Amino acid sequence: MEKKAILVVVDGLGDRSVKEGKTPLQLTPKKHLDDLAKRGSTGIMSTLGRGIIPGSDTAHLALFGYDINRYYKGRGPFEALGVGIDLKEGDVAFRCNFATVDKDGRVIDRRAGRLKDEGKELAKSLQGIEVEGVKVIFSSSTEHRGVLVLRGEGLSPEISDTDPHTAESLPFKEARPLKNDERAKRTAKIVNEIVKRSQEILSSHPLNKEREEEGKLPANIILTRGAGIYQKIPSLKEKYGFSSCCIAGAALYKGVAKYVGMEVLEVPGATGRIDTDIEAKARESKKALKTFDFVFIHIKGADNASHDGNLRDKMLMIQKVDRLVELLREEEENAYLIVTADHSTPLSLKRHSSDPVPLMIYGPGIRQDKVELFDEISTSSGCLGHLKGVELMKVIVDLMGCSHMVGS
Amino acid sequence: MEKKAILVVVDGLGDRSVKEGKTPLQLTPKKHLDDLAKRGSTGIMSTLGRGIIPGSDTAHLALFGYDINRYYKGRGPFEALGVGIDLKEGDVAFRCNFATVDKDGRVIDRRAGRLKDEGKELAKSLQGIEVEGVKVIFSSSTEHRGVLVLRGEGLSPEISDTDPHTAESLPFKEARPLKNDERAKRTAKIVNEIVKRSQEILSSHPLNKEREEEGKLPANIILTRGAGIYQKIPSLKEKYGFSSCCIAGAALYKGVAKYVGMEVLEVPGATGRIDTDIEAKARESKKALKTFDFVFIHIKGADNASHDGNLRDKMLMIQKVDRLVELLREEEENAYLIVTADHSTPLSLKRHSSDPVPLMIYGPGIRQDKVELFDEISTSSGCLGHLKGVELMKVIVDLMGCSHMVGS
Repeated sequence: MEKKAILVVVDGLGDRSVKEGKTPLQLTPKKHLDDLAKRGSTGIMSTLGRGIIPGSDTAHLALFGYDINRYYKGRGPFEALGVGIDLKEGDVAFRCNFATVDKDGRVIDRRAGRLKDEGKELAKSLQGIEVEGVKVIFSSSTEHRGVLVLRGEGLSPEISDTDPHTAESLPFKEARPLKNDERAKRTAKIVNEIVKRSQEILSSHPLNKEREEEGKLPANIILTRGAGIYQKIPSLKEKYGFSSCCIAGAALYKGVAKYVGMEVLEVPGATGRIDTDIEAKARESKKALKTFDFVFIHIKGADNASHDGNLRDKMLMIQKVDRLVELLREEEENAYLIVTADHSTPLSLKRHSSDPVPLMIYGPGIRQDKVELFDEISTSSGCLGHLKGVELMKVIVDLMGCSHMVGS
Repeated sequence: MEKKAILVVVDGLGDRSVKEGKTPLQLTPKKHLDDLAKRGSTGIMSTLGRGIIPGSDTAHLALFGYDINRYYKGRGPFEALGVGIDLKEGDVAFRCNFATVDKDGRVIDRRAGRLKDEGKELAKSLQGIEVEGVKVIFSSSTEHRGVLVLRGEGLSPEISDTDPHTAESLPFKEARPLKNDERAKRTAKIVNEIVKRSQEILSSHPLNKEREEEGKLPANIILTRGAGIYQKIPSLKEKYGFSSCCIAGAALYKGVAKYVGMEVLEVPGATGRIDTDIEAKARESKKALKTFDFVFIHIKGADNASHDGNLRDKMLMIQKVDRLVELLREEEENAYLIVTADHSTPLSLKRHSSDPVPLMIYGPGIRQDKVELFDEISTSSGCLGHLKGVELMKVIVDLMGCSHMVGS
């Protein structure tokens, strides 16, 4: 290892013109981000390629240097890893919601009135289920969210969601095989059985009785989506020889990090929301850099603000990132600092878009281009040019001195 | 042929910030390179792709427009072609060193005290060896270097080096098959036999007796590395219809040039070192341009300086290239002049890196972008954008009028 590296991914940071022809990054004073852009190399990046809208999971996989066509097998396993489930090869995992259905099976609320902390208690009642020899693991996550894992022989992720994905009061769906294959048929059948049982168990759960008495919606079913199969893949350590860790609030990012072999550090105050404790994250990163060669920091708040169409909050998060960078840049002698995003989430769209994201690399000996500001427009004329997400890690690996020559 | 072209490859030219945030190219006055950049098209290039560290051999193959995954078969054949051996399809070639081993087979010096001119005489004693029906061809190269070629049926390049590649006094290695295959096993066995015989023959060579009497290290063994198999590939002439030649000092570059069908011109004074006679090279190039459509000029010195971490010499070489360009630009009416590098060799690293290299194309009717300086930063905002090495030749071929429309 010649050098270390810190990768800061600001989720949903990229945007379009929102005011006076300027993007939120252009509108926000951000002294340290600009100063580093001035002293470093900049560029612009399409994480999955031009015109392709990245998901958060696929974008991160690409940023970590993994070809998503080969290594992306659905979101479920990331969520499962993210909440701390120790997956085995062949497990099929799902994202789940606790939801509220009426007596006719119509989904009254996909989020059961956004649970607070009841998920954990409810989840206990769903343990120990076994269907056709397949073991069921269920874990609650934040609010109404949870993860379902099926463990056993002959499972397939090729099945449809039971979550109807709509605010209208439609009945929850039957899981259907998406392939005409015995495994898919069997897995769909098992999932339908589990959903049915969850309804039986949860409907009579004392906590739900309490909720109903309080006039709240009961969390009386779990609905599945995002099926994915877990496969063990070559870790960053195996590929490049360096140790790595993850500092993130939300489960998904911890999950992708674990998938590629990073150690997930738990940072109190890292909430994955706009109230995240940026000072704590910086402190933990600097500490982590003593132990690990590569530190991945995920900042979620800007994406949340974008999905809400909230310019003020997005600008606030940019200033938080500016503070983070101020605290991290002291490491400049030892490490490269890379700041970028996983995708754009334009405020005007309230969804991800394919607009490319700004990229900055700062550190020892780095080429200094003429770019003086860190935003989507300025960095697009930087010396790094226009990269694909999957190329970034190769560049970082060479900066760290962990790459190998091709040829001689 | 509508036009001719001169491709100047300045080995290891690209760099990182070394002083005041500037690269050696930015620090060096280079009137003619800058003037041509101003009047031409510029860009930046990753010869093997982003984040990939190019070897000298693979980088040149890519610059000549050949897909390395298909056409790169190890370095040995390039070295063999470079010293003038006429290879046949299926020959397996190795780079060799004359080395010094003690009586226990430990390598005292991998370079036998860096021979001067004795290699040629010593090489004679290694002629005519035949092992298991395989003919052995050996040729000395510069200093302690040489080339070994095996010619016969059933050979494989999938064998390990006998050179231990270290300055520590470790025993030389046995060649081992890198594949579980009869050809590889047989080739390894033959190489081990040849190395053994070289030790017997060279140990008793009068020249080595003399060296020992003079207190010098005897060149008492040859050690092999970089095995590669020779295959005949479509030449530039066959692919594009134009004639081409190479002006280079070092064997490797002559070898790659021969591999793609260029004629190798011998230029007295072209040393492949910092003392190379740039005026002679320019003179020869201008002469060559009367006979050939495409002239490849290789300048090695900047890479040597970079491997030594010597900024002064690197800047000196840049000025030599500036002089070369001054002399060549007179051809502007008839020919395109392309200046680039095969890879970066940052002074701070003393090794190749994946940092992209500057590119400039000057000649009749070429688009003039806004770039006014020839360096890594300035050219990165040029109108050619960011190319891959293998794309460059396509661009040149069309400028020369030798390309074909796809579609109609």
